[in-house]
Amino acid sequence: MNINKKMLELGSKRSIIREIFEFGKIRASEIGKENVYDFSLGNPSVKPPKKVDETIVSLVNNCNSTALHGYTSATGDLEVRKAITNNINKRFNVGINENLIYMTCGAAASLSITLRAILNEDEEVIVFAPFFTEYRVFIESAFGKVVVSNPLEKDFQIDLADFESKITPKTKAIILNSPNNPSGVVYNEQTIKGVCQILNKKSKEFGTEIVLISDEPYRELVYGDINVPYLMNYYNNCIVCYSFSKSLSLPGERIGYIAISPKLTEVKNVYNAICGAGRALGYVCAPSMFQKVIKECLDCSVDIESYKKNRDLLYNSLVKLGFNCIKPDGAFYLFVKSPSNDAFDMYEKAKQFNILIVPCDDFGIKGYCRISYCVAYDMIERSIPAFEKLAKVYKLN
Amino acid sequence: MNINKKMLELGSKRSIIREIFEFGKIRASEIGKENVYDFSLGNPSVKPPKKVDETIVSLVNNCNSTALHGYTSATGDLEVRKAITNNINKRFNVGINENLIYMTCGAAASLSITLRAILNEDEEVIVFAPFFTEYRVFIESAFGKVVVSNPLEKDFQIDLADFESKITPKTKAIILNSPNNPSGVVYNEQTIKGVCQILNKKSKEFGTEIVLISDEPYRELVYGDINVPYLMNYYNNCIVCYSFSKSLSLPGERIGYIAISPKLTEVKNVYNAICGAGRALGYVCAPSMFQKVIKECLDCSVDIESYKKNRDLLYNSLVKLGFNCIKPDGAFYLFVKSPSNDAFDMYEKAKQFNILIVPCDDFGIKGYCRISYCVAYDMIERSIPAFEKLAKVYKLN
Repeated sequence: MNINKKMLELGSKRSIIREIFEFGKIRASEIGKENVYDFSLGNPSVKPPKKVDETIVSLVNNCNSTALHGYTSATGDLEVRKAITNNINKRFNVGINENLIYMTCGAAASLSITLRAILNEDEEVIVFAPFFTEYRVFIESAFGKVVVSNPLEKDFQIDLADFESKITPKTKAIILNSPNNPSGVVYNEQTIKGVCQILNKKSKEFGTEIVLISDEPYRELVYGDINVPYLMNYYNNCIVCYSFSKSLSLPGERIGYIAISPKLTEVKNVYNAICGAGRALGYVCAPSMFQKVIKECLDCSVDIESYKKNRDLLYNSLVKLGFNCIKPDGAFYLFVKSPSNDAFDMYEKAKQFNILIVPCDDFGIKGYCRISYCVAYDMIERSIPAFEKLAKVYKLN
Repeated sequence: MNINKKMLELGSKRSIIREIFEFGKIRASEIGKENVYDFSLGNPSVKPPKKVDETIVSLVNNCNSTALHGYTSATGDLEVRKAITNNINKRFNVGINENLIYMTCGAAASLSITLRAILNEDEEVIVFAPFFTEYRVFIESAFGKVVVSNPLEKDFQIDLADFESKITPKTKAIILNSPNNPSGVVYNEQTIKGVCQILNKKSKEFGTEIVLISDEPYRELVYGDINVPYLMNYYNNCIVCYSFSKSLSLPGERIGYIAISPKLTEVKNVYNAICGAGRALGYVCAPSMFQKVIKECLDCSVDIESYKKNRDLLYNSLVKLGFNCIKPDGAFYLFVKSPSNDAFDMYEKAKQFNILIVPCDDFGIKGYCRISYCVAYDMIERSIPAFEKLAKVYKLN
């Protein structure tokens, strides 16, 4: 049957993360779950806030069932969008209104819809290494081209000179992901201002209007007194793609939103294009009950301290053992340099000690592995001896 | 800003159904809600089965919260797919297994993903008038071309001769929707056999493998002893697109599935292409909690009798008044011929009596209006005098 080859390719290629996960399950069945140290998946490990489940029960008990589970407007329930608007304005003072919010089925949907709405064929989207590999799928599925901008390896902030050199007349958008998957780094205000200055300069030079897409599901997962700039306050043509997957530990419920800056050029047209792209991709509305759930939980938070404890234990342990790693200010990943500069080599050696990590050559920079610390604290504790053995193999101390 | 014009167009065009709905709200605020007879939307009006909300509460109280709301496999939770498999095999004896089920975010997602997976640019998809207008969006968004096959106006079964004449070497798929939106008709076994015979004949003649897509969210909404043939039992290259929106009154929760016939050519490749298309359209997994909810509710049903009562009252009343309408065996729509043969004229005249119905010229056949009876029974009762006035205007009796 002459099916779509691109879709077949996309669906047949097993992601390395999936393969590692499957290997982990087999290994666990061989040697016991407690003896496998699976740091591969970026799956939230802390519970959703109590209020989530309390709200679910309350809605079920108090709402008309037909209304609770019925269609909402395609853009999302009005009261939910108003609540999100108020929350954004209270925190970031951007003057947004509910007609600039579009509820989605999660971050992947937010990004896919946004890209589909703004991209014309072969236009370019700049991503910043290291970047979440699925960006390539989102961009290419919207018929755009991926252009990779390099990081400063000392601290994984953005190499502004390299970024500027990557902008062409075909650049339609950039995707900023901060706090970052896989590095855990938060782009500081200096970096943000530098990026936006360049965007304004090049937009003017080329007569284009480059869109800054902020992919920020980890915004609330920061450790200590860290400022995560709200990008609408730095650049006009800004679209925020958000999801509650990490902030409320609801990754499976597929609930997030797109927020457009009120200062965006042709804001109404862009919003309509987003509505059109939602239709084109088969979306009817975001899940109705969970729209109402998150409305009640906008001020809630998962146990961030729990992630921080994990980070501190893992980071300190690995650095003590001689591994090279930026201390991440957010998200739940460590980005560790392979002692042999070969990411796959580190992944393979770690596997021998039943440590499962992700080799990141496809994330835009060679020689690093991602270690997710959204795991049980005690698993990190039990894994230290295994990391010691790995360090020994590399003669790190 | 040079955004995607096709997406802008899709998002800017207000659907007529949306406009009618908005008009209805305004009218209701002017003359009182009870005096507006809104038959425009196809929104389930009966409650979800009690078991849905009971299951939600039970899951929340008994499951680990992180697991309940966490990611499932992209194809859906294994136990959920097994349960659906057992349900399908028990009812239809098709020998399907859980690896041929792909959980989705509703019927629109099921169709969009399926079409994206199998279509190459400019391939043709045959739809059967009258058809759900959104098929055009799904097909064209997957870069296919819509070809319309005509009905037999006497009973809205399929005009097989016209269907056969519409098949070309570029025909990749057909979409059968039974029970039908907007006609409420169930394609009988004779029609189905005729369609499949032609598909086999033309597939052979052109050396192609035409896919039969069955869009069947209304399968369970049938009145009386009506057989709705399960199409996998009539044709090998069959893909079923299902959703629980109508059968369990959960349209806002976005939960459904794609089921591939085990007899489909290159079944593994097609399944992989579906997985790839899901990724390409921004889907990560179907909403996790509701996957588990529907697993417990596969044998449940909404109050079908309630829809039947509505159908009987409305159909009998309209026929008595002299309107021309096929008696529908399923779904919750009446497809009524405009007495002036002009659909828009009937829509406009009805509006004058505060009756809101949908003119269906865009559904592939001219001169009909859709009247949705998924409404409160008493609204139908109160609307009869208004329909009498409409009949008088057309001098029907």
